[in-house]
Amino acid sequence: MTERPATPAPFTTDDYRARMARAATAAADAGLAGLLVAPGPDLVWLTGYRPTSASERLTLLVLAPGHDPVLVVPTLEAGDAERAPGAPALTLRDWTDGQDPYAAAVPLLAGGGRYAVSDDTWAVHLLGLERRAPSSTSFTALGEALPMLRAVKDTAELDRLAAAGAAADAAYEKIKNVRFAGRRETDIAADLAALLREFGHAQVDFTVVGSGPNGADPHHEADDRVIADGDMVVLDFGGLKHGYGSDTTRTVHVGEPTAEERRVHEVVREAQERAVRAVRPGPTCQDVDRVARETIIEAGYGDRFIHRTGHGIGVTTHEPPYMVEGELQPLVPGMCFSVEPGIYLPGRFGVRIEDIVTVTDDGVRRLNTTSRELAIVQ
Amino acid sequence: MTERPATPAPFTTDDYRARMARAATAAADAGLAGLLVAPGPDLVWLTGYRPTSASERLTLLVLAPGHDPVLVVPTLEAGDAERAPGAPALTLRDWTDGQDPYAAAVPLLAGGGRYAVSDDTWAVHLLGLERRAPSSTSFTALGEALPMLRAVKDTAELDRLAAAGAAADAAYEKIKNVRFAGRRETDIAADLAALLREFGHAQVDFTVVGSGPNGADPHHEADDRVIADGDMVVLDFGGLKHGYGSDTTRTVHVGEPTAEERRVHEVVREAQERAVRAVRPGPTCQDVDRVARETIIEAGYGDRFIHRTGHGIGVTTHEPPYMVEGELQPLVPGMCFSVEPGIYLPGRFGVRIEDIVTVTDDGVRRLNTTSRELAIVQ
Repeated sequence: MTERPATPAPFTTDDYRARMARAATAAADAGLAGLLVAPGPDLVWLTGYRPTSASERLTLLVLAPGHDPVLVVPTLEAGDAERAPGAPALTLRDWTDGQDPYAAAVPLLAGGGRYAVSDDTWAVHLLGLERRAPSSTSFTALGEALPMLRAVKDTAELDRLAAAGAAADAAYEKIKNVRFAGRRETDIAADLAALLREFGHAQVDFTVVGSGPNGADPHHEADDRVIADGDMVVLDFGGLKHGYGSDTTRTVHVGEPTAEERRVHEVVREAQERAVRAVRPGPTCQDVDRVARETIIEAGYGDRFIHRTGHGIGVTTHEPPYMVEGELQPLVPGMCFSVEPGIYLPGRFGVRIEDIVTVTDDGVRRLNTTSRELAIVQ
Repeated sequence: MTERPATPAPFTTDDYRARMARAATAAADAGLAGLLVAPGPDLVWLTGYRPTSASERLTLLVLAPGHDPVLVVPTLEAGDAERAPGAPALTLRDWTDGQDPYAAAVPLLAGGGRYAVSDDTWAVHLLGLERRAPSSTSFTALGEALPMLRAVKDTAELDRLAAAGAAADAAYEKIKNVRFAGRRETDIAADLAALLREFGHAQVDFTVVGSGPNGADPHHEADDRVIADGDMVVLDFGGLKHGYGSDTTRTVHVGEPTAEERRVHEVVREAQERAVRAVRPGPTCQDVDRVARETIIEAGYGDRFIHRTGHGIGVTTHEPPYMVEGELQPLVPGMCFSVEPGIYLPGRFGVRIEDIVTVTDDGVRRLNTTSRELAIVQ
């Protein structure tokens, strides 16, 4: 039903050069001396480099405004780093087992000042830098200093996010036809994972199957509970396709729902619909959360909507911007995030509906387009 | 050929209580005020808790000599943490989205002093702690302060490591019978991964297939190279079974080897054999490396053995102790590590032979027991 899109053209060295330049400019604008980026999603986004081994050996991208980017790498991994698509846009500086890797990195910080370190840098490396750096140097978390660094997606990124969303939609259309009653949640979760891979996902990050009372715990994943006729079932699944994320939720019902189940589902559907319609350039992330929350409060379920309304998505499935009270970041064209209100009735059932959306020049575009009506499954 | 062992009895709360007490004592002996442990192998080993989600929300075990262990967790994940087998031996302290998690953790450090932080703690969390902690507090890396914390395994751990080793051996016995010539390295790697899973591995960490010249790069994993008659092929594979690691290497030959290939293989086999025989309580890690290295130097290939001789293994497949020049840690009964010398001839081929061994009261026990003679494959 969903045509499988062709593999997108790979990002080029120029793409990565532009991202690194943009990041260095953002750093300067924020009064930072530079950015220090260890392996993880920030490094993938900036350079296309994803080391295969663990991070016990220091790999660190040093981006300082006015200087060429430098990637410090273990000699053993220099060959891999050289093959990264962003490598021609930076200088590699390698260090060998037995040398002090921090001594290799610290001269790059010689000017002192405040450096933002990628959030998931290992503490052992930050401590090594702190020990070696001149006292005029200080460190802060990149996610706090420049939370929106990766938030605005370009056209090539949006194409990938749309392809990932279409694949998740195709998986949903197929899962609706499998047998639910009498099977365990983990069985349905395995089906979902296989479908995501069938539709081109290289990585499956989560396959939540919350049936009956399990659906009332938004943190539930999937367990041995056998799904029965009469169950509501929350299905929340996603992963990475061509390096970009999918994340969608639909709540289905096994057999005929009760009037209350229909009503709760309709409240969530309405809240999600209104929140999506509120997305356009200008309003803040908090505004999106409030629109969803007010709809649910008006229906009398305000205390049963116990999480934020959404999160950004890109080279990871959870990243800024967050649609949450207190987030005053205005929406900007190219931002991409989930809108996923829910109602959770402890011991009974839960409902959540989630689409990925992107802010356009004058409104919003959904990257998940399957029906949000309550689907009846067997 | 290898009987599949029964599932080992799970570790008990008492096991985890004993480990946490041992860690607190080791911290006191090292002059530390305590240990701060984020999600990762240290936390798994100390508490049995392995959060399923990413580490952007602070989870932190605070172990201080003379105090009961406390685990700071996000409220959303408190239910999962409570179900960890070590949970009854510690106090949970949860924090909710919107609260400052570091404010929840820092009162536990009120006495000041030097705390060791698990190496893989995210920088964003260390920075949060540094910002909030009293100035009398300082931080160091756990891997530097207490490198041998997990190095000595108890009987139940050794049983698991032996079972993982037996499973890897069973995989090797089967892979020798598959067709190599005409297939890609990635095909053999997929076979190895499937075999490890067939023999009980829940996680496959690496399946190196280095054929012909690819075998001369010890960092090579597996690529599209088609294996040909006459190739040497390095097979290095492992992962986790019942939570403990396997890691073994054999080098096989497709068809009849040349005299030089046989000679190089025999030098590595002899180096590995001598190094394993040098393992017993008393000598240092460096000594094990030197025995392997001297054998290879005597044979004239000293400059072609370009990595350390071994690494520890436990709840991860790479951890201290490291068999490397400069590591003066004496071997102690219960330590478990690889012995894996190799010779790498650039552009031509490589040979590596690796067993996991454990130090016994009076010598050594191999946890990999398949033949180390050069196997001829098709």
